[in-house]
Amino acid sequence: MLEELKAKVCKANLDLVKHGLVLFTWGNVSGIDREKGLVVIKPSGVSYDSMKPEDMVVVDLETGKVVEGDLNPSSDTPTHLVIYRHFLKVGGVVHTHSTYATAWAQAGKDIPNIGTTHADYFHDAIPCTDDMTEDMMAQYEYNTGVVIIDKFKKDGINPVHTPGVLVKNHGPFTWGKDPDEAVYHAVVAEQVARMAFISFSVNPQTTMNPLLIEKHFSRKHGPNAYYGQRKKK
Amino acid sequence: MLEELKAKVCKANLDLVKHGLVLFTWGNVSGIDREKGLVVIKPSGVSYDSMKPEDMVVVDLETGKVVEGDLNPSSDTPTHLVIYRHFLKVGGVVHTHSTYATAWAQAGKDIPNIGTTHADYFHDAIPCTDDMTEDMMAQYEYNTGVVIIDKFKKDGINPVHTPGVLVKNHGPFTWGKDPDEAVYHAVVAEQVARMAFISFSVNPQTTMNPLLIEKHFSRKHGPNAYYGQRKKK
Amino acid sequence: MLEELKAKVCKANLDLVKHGLVLFTWGNVSGIDREKGLVVIKPSGVSYDSMKPEDMVVVDLETGKVVEGDLNPSSDTPTHLVIYRHFLKVGGVVHTHSTYATAWAQAGKDIPNIGTTHADYFHDAIPCTDDMTEDMMAQYEYNTGVVIIDKFKKDGINPVHTPGVLVKNHGPFTWGKDPDEAVYHAVVAEQVARMAFISFSVNPQTTMNPLLIEKHFSRKHGPNAYYGQRKKK
Amino acid sequence: MLEELKAKVCKANLDLVKHGLVLFTWGNVSGIDREKGLVVIKPSGVSYDSMKPEDMVVVDLETGKVVEGDLNPSSDTPTHLVIYRHFLKVGGVVHTHSTYATAWAQAGKDIPNIGTTHADYFHDAIPCTDDMTEDMMAQYEYNTGVVIIDKFKKDGINPVHTPGVLVKNHGPFTWGKDPDEAVYHAVVAEQVARMAFISFSVNPQTTMNPLLIEKHFSRKHGPNAYYGQRKKK
Repeated sequence: MLEELKAKVCKANLDLVKHGLVLFTWGNVSGIDREKGLVVIKPSGVSYDSMKPEDMVVVDLETGKVVEGDLNPSSDTPTHLVIYRHFLKVGGVVHTHSTYATAWAQAGKDIPNIGTTHADYFHDAIPCTDDMTEDMMAQYEYNTGVVIIDKFKKDGINPVHTPGVLVKNHGPFTWGKDPDEAVYHAVVAEQVARMAFISFSVNPQTTMNPLLIEKHFSRKHGPNAYYGQRKKK
Repeated sequence: MLEELKAKVCKANLDLVKHGLVLFTWGNVSGIDREKGLVVIKPSGVSYDSMKPEDMVVVDLETGKVVEGDLNPSSDTPTHLVIYRHFLKVGGVVHTHSTYATAWAQAGKDIPNIGTTHADYFHDAIPCTDDMTEDMMAQYEYNTGVVIIDKFKKDGINPVHTPGVLVKNHGPFTWGKDPDEAVYHAVVAEQVARMAFISFSVNPQTTMNPLLIEKHFSRKHGPNAYYGQRKKK
Repeated sequence: MLEELKAKVCKANLDLVKHGLVLFTWGNVSGIDREKGLVVIKPSGVSYDSMKPEDMVVVDLETGKVVEGDLNPSSDTPTHLVIYRHFLKVGGVVHTHSTYATAWAQAGKDIPNIGTTHADYFHDAIPCTDDMTEDMMAQYEYNTGVVIIDKFKKDGINPVHTPGVLVKNHGPFTWGKDPDEAVYHAVVAEQVARMAFISFSVNPQTTMNPLLIEKHFSRKHGPNAYYGQRKKK
Repeated sequence: MLEELKAKVCKANLDLVKHGLVLFTWGNVSGIDREKGLVVIKPSGVSYDSMKPEDMVVVDLETGKVVEGDLNPSSDTPTHLVIYRHFLKVGGVVHTHSTYATAWAQAGKDIPNIGTTHADYFHDAIPCTDDMTEDMMAQYEYNTGVVIIDKFKKDGINPVHTPGVLVKNHGPFTWGKDPDEAVYHAVVAEQVARMAFISFSVNPQTTMNPLLIEKHFSRKHGPNAYYGQRKKK
């Protein structure tokens, strides 16, 4: 079942390796079939070298139960499911421990929007979640999803316009309309994290004019987008 | 038309990838035929993997209208055109979001001339433009060119001797006598940005003797240049 | 003798190169046969390019004497032997001068546990040893082992839960149940060192909730581990 | 003439590329035949892609005149010659603009000896030269050699034990008993510069016990050296 989605999710996982975002098995991509209510995700702790579409695991969006697949799904599956349940336009989710984005997560800091590279893909700062409380830790992966949702709700961030987050002391999650776009956003988040580290080292007080953020974001998003090979108006 | 220039511009775009200056489609090179008043530039948002000379777009230097080509030209085309119109010895222009140069642009700081690697190719600091005013943003790409020209005029910088700039919160533009040299200067600007980041981390007060700048610049430029395989005098 | 272990140790040495942890000949891996009381280790100063299993040197765990092999064993052999003698569950030991872990060793600082990447493999900070006293230096490599053991004893660190150390002004040693796992931990230590350098640059005061450390460590270790393809309970 | 030395010098130049120490044509290696009083050096500004032994240029040690070769010698030739004339045990010289060593040169700072990687190959700090005076600049490359020699003389540094230097605001020169060893020291200088940058970012006050420096240096140098496959005593 879901052969096409499995192929896409498998390829997206391998693209993480191609883009230098994963060491060993530290990363996972999932995709969703919203009509069937099923999520396809990478198996847990399996090497990328021999990964095939048929290794992907199918889980139920609501219950999290494995519907198909011989392997355990990624241990981060409950986090992916919470994101799909609350961010209804999300079609793919990525988690990595990519170097610079993870370093910002370890620093416990939002990545401020100080450049057009950032503004082209993330409208706001890439937010860093709050600490998880002690009683949430028993259901760690599920509640990792909860602290993500809470952060976006509390700060009024639109998850379509800012398709990623840093889980404090852990690492980035990004998403998109499908697994491919989620990987694209993971690459952008890593590059943005890397450049912001350098920028703040050079000038700790740097900022960007909010009007420039709007301008750049709207070049690629919304009814007046004109970047790429879109039909001109 | 302009088959030779298209081939050069296409190759120069691919060289950006080879030198590690671009992620995805984030970069563009153009070249000009000054006699015909035509500029050849990369199409917008197209993958480098399959890029061919015939994909290049020809636009009119004065009007910016597409003269030949099925694809939209780079969204940064208006910026390139302003540079060609005002810097009359420029034959090629490059824009990238290369990591270190972009990080300095995000920091809103000129890259000071503190080393002979810099002085060999850029006489002055690589300047960072001022903020664009709110009313300039409606014509963002055109006015990106304007803030570049204004910076060079205001500070009395010679664009032939200092063939590059950082657009604040955005990234570097470089240029040269042809597309190849513009790419060469993009590579130098990135390396110079990287080394300056490290140098200022090690010693925030470092400077270079202005006489040493003159000496190194004149080793490679002007009537007394003696670097490379030039005829000896 | 010990052909299988020699093959493993040789492969583990070559894996250091594959993971970018060594320049020239600067690194060594050993493995132990506890029943026979013999340690297999890389020869000293030999190029990785042509390294073969039969080049590995066999030394006696207690006396350090070469039992088999035409080449001198690694000059760090006495350090490896002290680790095997005191940390009885260790089956493989790695020493490298990998960039970031060595830089922390040169800084004379423990790498604090500020992220789940760290907590997944190292329970505590990766400790940095104390200075060696002057009279210990006559037997430098042996006493490098002694300062490692002393550090773990003094601070009550469990070497199975925190399988690595920084030798002050020198570089990292890591270990594991076999040579492969010791290499894995060397890779993790390098990545953790790299990310911590960036995190502390971004936020010098960052810390991690100790409860989150326990949670992540126990996801992969002990009776309730559930990461990877373990049988579910 | 000097076919063997030309082959060695050509290979050593290509090794700079292999080790990632050069961009474009920015680097040069030379070697000396002390009996004949002749130096073989890379031509100026020539691409590494097609470099062949017969492109190497032969110059006279004392006069600097080209004895054989159709191309101009490296513009840094006068610096190499001064080093050969004053440091009589040197058989090969390397100059690069490698990223981290050049960044320290731009910072105008010695690279302090804070680790055993450094102490294994450079006894003292890698020194940074003083500023050149204005009247020295007319003979810039020659006087680059002079400021190097002056620095070693003034500070009592042994050029065999500390086989490298940073020319202020310029970049590193290293040397060795032959071109190969000079390249080896260029690689070590770059790695040592990179690690020291990170170490001082983590701990600006870090130092190393001078006794440990002696110990490590003497492991690889002098009558009691025991690293590698030397005969045991």
